[in-house]
Amino acid sequence: MITQSVTNLIDQLAKLPGIGRKSAERLTYHLLRVSKSDALALSDAIRDVKENVRYCKTCFNLAEADECEICRDPKRDRRLLCVVEQPRDLIALESAGTYKGLYHVLLGRIAPLDGIGPEQLTIEPLVNRARSGDFKEIIMATNPTLEGDGTALFISHQLSGLPVEITRLARGITTGSVLEFANKEILTDALTGRQKF
Amino acid sequence: MITQSVTNLIDQLAKLPGIGRKSAERLTYHLLRVSKSDALALSDAIRDVKENVRYCKTCFNLAEADECEICRDPKRDRRLLCVVEQPRDLIALESAGTYKGLYHVLLGRIAPLDGIGPEQLTIEPLVNRARSGDFKEIIMATNPTLEGDGTALFISHQLSGLPVEITRLARGITTGSVLEFANKEILTDALTGRQKF
Repeated sequence: MITQSVTNLIDQLAKLPGIGRKSAERLTYHLLRVSKSDALALSDAIRDVKENVRYCKTCFNLAEADECEICRDPKRDRRLLCVVEQPRDLIALESAGTYKGLYHVLLGRIAPLDGIGPEQLTIEPLVNRARSGDFKEIIMATNPTLEGDGTALFISHQLSGLPVEITRLARGITTGSVLEFANKEILTDALTGRQKF
Repeated sequence: MITQSVTNLIDQLAKLPGIGRKSAERLTYHLLRVSKSDALALSDAIRDVKENVRYCKTCFNLAEADECEICRDPKRDRRLLCVVEQPRDLIALESAGTYKGLYHVLLGRIAPLDGIGPEQLTIEPLVNRARSGDFKEIIMATNPTLEGDGTALFISHQLSGLPVEITRLARGITTGSVLEFANKEILTDALTGRQKF
């Protein structure tokens, strides 16, 4: 017979997305086999994240204090604001290393089919930040999908009338790709937004 | 920037077998999103398993006391012993519900190519149990693989001379299968071990 603790761990692991019953069993046997300190390191990491990580009160990025590291960083350009859907988008932009301004994380995108309206996102705090007049440019960096574009459009309407320039990420062909395989939408974007050589 | 706790959790999850960096990130964002109690339930389940689960001192099954539930169960037939490689094999046999005797878990199989010799398994305690004279039959239920068969053969040599019958699981065609697709080895097993109708 399988013990209570083992059954419970299998149940808990099987709740994770993309992990079925068999994978949960395999992971459980793995955790039974590894050293106690290795297994407890995972257990503690989960606890730490839930106990220490919260949303930044200014930009809604992940933070371990009231404000995130970026909002507290005196070296960032405080006249630039980049609006992203999720913390993981912010991480992707940060790893590119080009952008030196501040961020605003929406924590989602407007998705009527999933029942997600503007009031469930952090659009109101964003409008308040924009109203403060501190920013000269707000860059829309939502995903280039129907819902991401829709969200950016909605926000740009909310911000219209404020003395701030609203821009969005460039669309075009991707560096390293092949023209032959680019679809109609990509080529249209690339032609419409063509740049001086 | 990503916080320290988040990076640490991604690192810990990425150590699990079959979970790459991207999956670890996805699981981390999932754990950030779920309620604190759900995430802590997983954290506690890992801790519980490492703190409460040990090997049964008699049969080396997983146990939460000195002896496992099966060894302590007065309703089991104490004259029958079934030898399996891993606790998960025991669980599979238990879920079949036919076997009512005791078990002995080897915690592996002899695998010279992986550097696993008989002394790393629980063969010595098994021979001691067999010597006690309590058992009338010992059933070899190692996996029907080259290494599993080799391990069973090695053990049967160790036990030869003791007044106990040594048997192994029946080999043959599997219920629900199709003869047409059975391979040579399966058909040879089925013919050699043919049973009275």
